[in-house]
Amino acid sequence: MKLTEDQIKEIKEQQSQQNSTKRVTAPELEKILYDAIPILDHGFIRVIDYMGDDTSIVQAARVSYGKGTKKVSTDSGLIKYLMRHWHSTPFEMCEIKYHIKLPIFIARQWIRHRTANVNEYSARYSILDKEFYLPKAEHLAAQSQNNRQGRGQVLEGDKAKKVLDLLKSDAEQTYNNYETMLNEKYDGSTIDKNSPGLARELARMNLTLNTYTQWYWKTDLLNLMNFIRLRVDTHAQYEIRAYADVMLNTLKKWVPTTYEAFLDYRIGGIELSSKGKTVIQKIINKEEVDINNSGLSKREWNELMDGMNLNDRKIT
Amino acid sequence: MKLTEDQIKEIKEQQSQQNSTKRVTAPELEKILYDAIPILDHGFIRVIDYMGDDTSIVQAARVSYGKGTKKVSTDSGLIKYLMRHWHSTPFEMCEIKYHIKLPIFIARQWIRHRTANVNEYSARYSILDKEFYLPKAEHLAAQSQNNRQGRGQVLEGDKAKKVLDLLKSDAEQTYNNYETMLNEKYDGSTIDKNSPGLARELARMNLTLNTYTQWYWKTDLLNLMNFIRLRVDTHAQYEIRAYADVMLNTLKKWVPTTYEAFLDYRIGGIELSSKGKTVIQKIINKEEVDINNSGLSKREWNELMDGMNLNDRKIT
Amino acid sequence: MKLTEDQIKEIKEQQSQQNSTKRVTAPELEKILYDAIPILDHGFIRVIDYMGDDTSIVQAARVSYGKGTKKVSTDSGLIKYLMRHWHSTPFEMCEIKYHIKLPIFIARQWIRHRTANVNEYSARYSILDKEFYLPKAEHLAAQSQNNRQGRGQVLEGDKAKKVLDLLKSDAEQTYNNYETMLNEKYDGSTIDKNSPGLARELARMNLTLNTYTQWYWKTDLLNLMNFIRLRVDTHAQYEIRAYADVMLNTLKKWVPTTYEAFLDYRIGGIELSSKGKTVIQKIINKEEVDINNSGLSKREWNELMDGMNLNDRKIT
Amino acid sequence: MKLTEDQIKEIKEQQSQQNSTKRVTAPELEKILYDAIPILDHGFIRVIDYMGDDTSIVQAARVSYGKGTKKVSTDSGLIKYLMRHWHSTPFEMCEIKYHIKLPIFIARQWIRHRTANVNEYSARYSILDKEFYLPKAEHLAAQSQNNRQGRGQVLEGDKAKKVLDLLKSDAEQTYNNYETMLNEKYDGSTIDKNSPGLARELARMNLTLNTYTQWYWKTDLLNLMNFIRLRVDTHAQYEIRAYADVMLNTLKKWVPTTYEAFLDYRIGGIELSSKGKTVIQKIINKEEVDINNSGLSKREWNELMDGMNLNDRKIT
Repeated sequence: MKLTEDQIKEIKEQQSQQNSTKRVTAPELEKILYDAIPILDHGFIRVIDYMGDDTSIVQAARVSYGKGTKKVSTDSGLIKYLMRHWHSTPFEMCEIKYHIKLPIFIARQWIRHRTANVNEYSARYSILDKEFYLPKAEHLAAQSQNNRQGRGQVLEGDKAKKVLDLLKSDAEQTYNNYETMLNEKYDGSTIDKNSPGLARELARMNLTLNTYTQWYWKTDLLNLMNFIRLRVDTHAQYEIRAYADVMLNTLKKWVPTTYEAFLDYRIGGIELSSKGKTVIQKIINKEEVDINNSGLSKREWNELMDGMNLNDRKIT
Repeated sequence: MKLTEDQIKEIKEQQSQQNSTKRVTAPELEKILYDAIPILDHGFIRVIDYMGDDTSIVQAARVSYGKGTKKVSTDSGLIKYLMRHWHSTPFEMCEIKYHIKLPIFIARQWIRHRTANVNEYSARYSILDKEFYLPKAEHLAAQSQNNRQGRGQVLEGDKAKKVLDLLKSDAEQTYNNYETMLNEKYDGSTIDKNSPGLARELARMNLTLNTYTQWYWKTDLLNLMNFIRLRVDTHAQYEIRAYADVMLNTLKKWVPTTYEAFLDYRIGGIELSSKGKTVIQKIINKEEVDINNSGLSKREWNELMDGMNLNDRKIT
Repeated sequence: MKLTEDQIKEIKEQQSQQNSTKRVTAPELEKILYDAIPILDHGFIRVIDYMGDDTSIVQAARVSYGKGTKKVSTDSGLIKYLMRHWHSTPFEMCEIKYHIKLPIFIARQWIRHRTANVNEYSARYSILDKEFYLPKAEHLAAQSQNNRQGRGQVLEGDKAKKVLDLLKSDAEQTYNNYETMLNEKYDGSTIDKNSPGLARELARMNLTLNTYTQWYWKTDLLNLMNFIRLRVDTHAQYEIRAYADVMLNTLKKWVPTTYEAFLDYRIGGIELSSKGKTVIQKIINKEEVDINNSGLSKREWNELMDGMNLNDRKIT
Repeated sequence: MKLTEDQIKEIKEQQSQQNSTKRVTAPELEKILYDAIPILDHGFIRVIDYMGDDTSIVQAARVSYGKGTKKVSTDSGLIKYLMRHWHSTPFEMCEIKYHIKLPIFIARQWIRHRTANVNEYSARYSILDKEFYLPKAEHLAAQSQNNRQGRGQVLEGDKAKKVLDLLKSDAEQTYNNYETMLNEKYDGSTIDKNSPGLARELARMNLTLNTYTQWYWKTDLLNLMNFIRLRVDTHAQYEIRAYADVMLNTLKKWVPTTYEAFLDYRIGGIELSSKGKTVIQKIINKEEVDINNSGLSKREWNELMDGMNLNDRKIT
């Protein structure tokens, strides 16, 4: 990730602010406010603004439960209780805003999270930067054989090199032709002064999906946790997981108590179906149980045993 | 509005905070942060937290339009442009949170604005305060004869007094019986130690719709403006308009440039239908135009003439 | 529940329709279309319209996964897979619309489900029916001692009678005064022709929260299941559970395959936290485990043992 | 647009259905149900399902207004009234579902309409079709000089040809390399049986933004009208306008009364700001008015005169 001089200057100016406020603040998050945290080869995430902290969740819950919250003595206990019982609305009382640079094919996954506010760089108005994502060798994996949407083995040296060469040369060529059609270079200079350029809203269609875009993305804490839970999962595509991992770390700095409860109840846990629960109960009670009398499919059975670390019970 | 000692103490503590932040701040709004602004007889609005200011809107718009925004030289010009062309997403980049005390029948209107986050005092957990809305004499109006959802003449002295007496005595009686059923007074003291009280989630059904409730309500600037535009309108019920008027004033303190554009493009303007536009054009061009060749209904014709201050053209 | 003659006539007319369509239909749901299913003393639910069936979910999933879905051979297998892995968007492809009559205090809980479309009877325009909810004796329970929002023992005969008498007399009295203030009876007749009535938007504030209202409520299948899951739960208030139970039955008639998967994965299952999972694994492996080394609170420990039917491990 | 044999067969099967229903139907829409209406070179729109018709809007409005709607004698009058006064919730009571094939750069604009349900073809699971958008010569326009996001003059023959050649050759080359990396042809055949293919979720990043994708897209009538209003506008990019124009026509077949009101109040009308209204009033009253005393910017002044067809008052 290389920032332009303008960006470096803007970040310094933003960080040099020292404003006084009566609002609650999150001191650990303040320390990294506006920082550009590098992700992938050209991407970044910056926390741009936030509202509320752990105490805001507690404050909202206490207005709901009134005297009813007196029994839960601590803020931490209350936040754990809310998380455990999916009492979700108090978590909506906090808000965060990020500035994110990311490849377009990842932006297309990301935007499916609808409960968020977005302002994206518009290639109808302006020329996109000459930056495209090229995976590192260790992320260039073959199609998985048993998972239609996953990756298998990492490609070997020669094959990896060939793929990278293709990705790189195609991205460069299409970008160059983008400039040619626009009659304008990425730095804004005109190529041929006597010739009109194609409309930007049309020329952009020639770019490949690994071209970087950027946006401001704002959401509340509840929806942020939904995003992170889905996207730090091992089934998520590596390239979006790289962003979610950084966001998980900003969550820790912002609302440390909520972060702990989130790890315990959302990330590290497991859901048992009705039939799955019966299987586990039978195992505990040493009753006969196997896939045939469980009502589970083979896939479901193995997912259950996997999730409960009962690997010797998995079947092939 | 009378605040409890606990509330007064909490507000003082909140206002005594002096935190340092790198976030943008809205100095005029900071001055009234946490203040309880009285509304109706027992209600209030407090601004509890906020995120962003006028510059946040500009910042988000500039990421969208990139170099395309250079032509609009000032922040104010850009905000006006966004408002005029309904480019709404940059306004979603600001967020505000209120603490509001309001009668239940108004809360029921309010909650229909769905794009907001809410935590309401729960009468399943706790006992509602002994406070109910009683209109001032000047707001006790008869049913309008020509507007099914509006008010007509203010009631005369005797009739007004009778209505107020009924509202007051019914609210007090139902509240007293609420306490009797709960076997508990509004201050938490038990009435009869040897008797169980009815479950709170049931007893609450005996309360009248003018009982006060309270909630935390958080929304973004775009949806706040939608709320205010609809609720400061003369067709809105007076009791919700009283809240919207106060919120309009907090809007002014928070984002003064947006406020100006909001008044010009959303509050003071008018929408012309296709047919209505043709009528106005004919008037300008001194062509023959009357309701018969306009395609407008009588109601629509009069609304148009009203809106354009062409009262002599109204028909009866 | 008593329907008016107008309502009975309207239902008959709606049910006598026999239209031809190329859309998919849900034959079991068609059989009860427009029926008023009684709930509580005066409430009802009617299915008014719907869109899609089980095959619509499969159709949407297959467009997403393309050839990737070939491995899952049956529609039922695919729906179970989607449910298990929280692939939620295909369930949004079905839509249903209900006409519901319910007490206002239940409507206030209900409306918190924001992802739905609603048109409620407006008491600003019209006079509310003279109908209020009075619980049956077996539902008149005391406040729970260990659950701030729950019910405990059913009240005994005398106490129950006293509560019912209060609820009834207060509702009738406030309704009568509502008519007096309106100067209009529930049937639309004027009381005193020489006197103006109070505006409806004001008079309604005198009604108690057990007064019935009604609305059209439309949502997609995903959000319907969220609603049902939360509201058929034993922690939900009985009065809203009564509605959710009926809706669960309409779900069965509408999308029977989804219904089966819903019962298995959403209703009958259990969530284990990270720490809870470790406890269960230790129990299976016959390792030492008790509350002290579990990291769980007493409450959490007991909820876990309860959920897994390990009642002998509960502590007091 | 060429449909595959599988698609043609599927459409025929869907259209051969003749189901009986008690639901309301929209006969004109039934006639085109499932039809693939061609758009651009390879795109299409198909109406797949719908719920409700004009009478559903009226039905929902009447439950809200109760007896209050009696004064508006006709369904058409009521729908016009709702549209004029932005009483939007009754329009949410109808729902429609489309199957759409469109270029990715248009899909990226489209998805910003958040209040909709979407299932998109996933290039993580499956291989995208070998189809990319190439504009017709008459749509290949130069960048507008006075509108940062618009098009100006159509390019001349030679220049147009050069642009088309670049777009075509780049799309074909990147698609061919996509196949090479996947080690799989668009028809599913393997290229080299002894070599692994790159994971689909990675290979897709090599495609250009004019590659076609497809999705199921479902929304309610209110949000459909918002979409159409914004996207049939002359400021919308031609390629999305082509889709919106077709959708406007499906709106006409589905809810003809609403369609008429939509044209009058949403499409053909104009909004006047507070200052703009004052200018028009002065013109009507033959008072002195020019840009200097109007408070309008030059841009705003000209937009106003343009909108009111007062072109001789425009300034340069």
